[in-house]
Amino acid sequence: VIARIAPGAAIVDLTHDVARWDVAAGAMTLWRAAPWLAPGVVLAVVDPGVATPRRAIALETGASPPAGPLFLVGPDNGILGPAARAAGIARAVVLDNPAWHFPNPSPNVSGATFAGRDVFAPAAAHLSRGVDLGELGSPIDPASIVGGESPGPVAAPGGGVGCVITWVDHFGNAQLNITPADLAGLGPDLVLVLPRIVRPISARASFAEIPSGALGLVTDSYGRCAICVDRGAAAAELGLSAGDSVVLR
Amino acid sequence: VIARIAPGAAIVDLTHDVARWDVAAGAMTLWRAAPWLAPGVVLAVVDPGVATPRRAIALETGASPPAGPLFLVGPDNGILGPAARAAGIARAVVLDNPAWHFPNPSPNVSGATFAGRDVFAPAAAHLSRGVDLGELGSPIDPASIVGGESPGPVAAPGGGVGCVITWVDHFGNAQLNITPADLAGLGPDLVLVLPRIVRPISARASFAEIPSGALGLVTDSYGRCAICVDRGAAAAELGLSAGDSVVLR
Amino acid sequence: VIARIAPGAAIVDLTHDVARWDVAAGAMTLWRAAPWLAPGVVLAVVDPGVATPRRAIALETGASPPAGPLFLVGPDNGILGPAARAAGIARAVVLDNPAWHFPNPSPNVSGATFAGRDVFAPAAAHLSRGVDLGELGSPIDPASIVGGESPGPVAAPGGGVGCVITWVDHFGNAQLNITPADLAGLGPDLVLVLPRIVRPISARASFAEIPSGALGLVTDSYGRCAICVDRGAAAAELGLSAGDSVVLR
Repeated sequence: VIARIAPGAAIVDLTHDVARWDVAAGAMTLWRAAPWLAPGVVLAVVDPGVATPRRAIALETGASPPAGPLFLVGPDNGILGPAARAAGIARAVVLDNPAWHFPNPSPNVSGATFAGRDVFAPAAAHLSRGVDLGELGSPIDPASIVGGESPGPVAAPGGGVGCVITWVDHFGNAQLNITPADLAGLGPDLVLVLPRIVRPISARASFAEIPSGALGLVTDSYGRCAICVDRGAAAAELGLSAGDSVVLR
Repeated sequence: VIARIAPGAAIVDLTHDVARWDVAAGAMTLWRAAPWLAPGVVLAVVDPGVATPRRAIALETGASPPAGPLFLVGPDNGILGPAARAAGIARAVVLDNPAWHFPNPSPNVSGATFAGRDVFAPAAAHLSRGVDLGELGSPIDPASIVGGESPGPVAAPGGGVGCVITWVDHFGNAQLNITPADLAGLGPDLVLVLPRIVRPISARASFAEIPSGALGLVTDSYGRCAICVDRGAAAAELGLSAGDSVVLR
Repeated sequence: VIARIAPGAAIVDLTHDVARWDVAAGAMTLWRAAPWLAPGVVLAVVDPGVATPRRAIALETGASPPAGPLFLVGPDNGILGPAARAAGIARAVVLDNPAWHFPNPSPNVSGATFAGRDVFAPAAAHLSRGVDLGELGSPIDPASIVGGESPGPVAAPGGGVGCVITWVDHFGNAQLNITPADLAGLGPDLVLVLPRIVRPISARASFAEIPSGALGLVTDSYGRCAICVDRGAAAAELGLSAGDSVVLR
């Protein structure tokens, strides 16, 4: 559909590995990638509420790269919120102008169940060929967009830093919602406290420096601390999933 | 190989998720996508009969988009037939002119077992840079191309509409070979009859409107009725696969 | 990152299916693909040693396609060596000039754990827009690059040809490190000898010619002999993995 509307557009697949219906995982994936993106349009669709009254939106970020603006397009269910708030939101619209939707090629097709194809992809394609955001629909208050940045760490009741796992990556590393600064003064040798597991964990500069069988706390490529093992899946070994709470002491 | 022959061609991956050897699934995938495609060339390869006498073909559809022609390239094993017949076939050739095949870079490589790389991709690349279809090989009768459109519903022996499952999508929704028009006069509340399961099923406008634990009949994004549950896999729950017969009463 | 540095670059995903940490599989994937590649830049990253002293390198192959040079970029852990040696290496550098790395968008991000994004992708992007290889870092001796071409067959102690499985493909075919020339004089009907299995195996011109239940030796699309069954996974049936030794008599 994008190629049909904007034949010259370069289409880059950032990922197709977000689990079905997992809006939060999609939101964190976009939040992680956004600072490195080229100017252009991001089409982000994880949309279990398709054909319900959830809004279809598009927005222009405030912190656009020097070479041009960055637009985000998708359902207003929280998938765009964290990345949009981190970058700032210059303006936003609801995609309520059907003139920019894709006309159904068949009278049998209502399009109601595939907004990714019929509403979001056309909006992204039209933005990429220079259509003004304001043409696509009615302006909305940026503050009304669903989803904010993830919360930071808290002081754990029994002492230490209470963290949340924000993502388990392809390798099984469990990213936390903290940076090394949040552990300042604690030194490199810590203890990881889970409901039924207490394990030593030490700060390491690389995956390969983690001794065999041990846990390492590695600053990952997004500046966050991650619970890791070398060439293994820490999350599976410890039974951890995105959203779980852990304590570092 | 395409980039080598046609350096300026934009390559869009429609899917790499067709199961190995499943020609019927590839054919239905192409049939579903075809009405939304931009002008250009579709390379479709699911080819368990590679290196046997099955024909390698290319064709121009009759219902080309206004902006330019649409070509289909692949083995003549049924993968192209349904989409080609739905769009109409203006002309077709067998890819028997070796001048347009890719020359092997090594004398050890016969190319006999990878026509996707050595025959089909070069044909697609040459078409995309403007080579005439007639140059690629000998003309064939469009009527001889394997594979037609899937059959419609039948009257079930014990009453009701006898349907076939044409596809189980990524979410587990089971698409049927019927549109809402095929259920006209039956009302929104039906019964799904399987060999060992009888379950109520009601027409719904969206996935989210299906009550928890219930089955919904949703008109999917291709205009077909699909058996669905909300945020779950109806096909797995009911033990259904593509090709299975079911009855709606 | 590539789109940001080189907006006009066409990005083609050769594969994302190399198993995590499997440098040898990545090296063989690149070695297989290289003879068919268009001029340009290959970015190859399987990098379990990220943030250790393993070198980050880029090289220009000696056997560049007529239409332009072919560059390889990646960690010097063996992933580039086999393809580079097969094509010849004209010149090589270590990517030690930080002026060509990607500047971190956040002071929290060290970049130490994601050289694919921060070092290799920028180098590939700069090469694609015409930056000279020599600008990216200090020259290194091509002979020092890790990884060579895979060894050929040996005479088996008890008679026959001792082979190694170099790859199990998506279909389950097990590629051997031999070509049909290595079996000259043995005839089409052979015996496959594994530690606990002895099975007849016959040379076949296509997968479809292998009788049901039998093993076939098919010359694959890279000119190598492969152990195959028709529409089944020979490697799973025989318990074979890449790196295993087998004997053909």
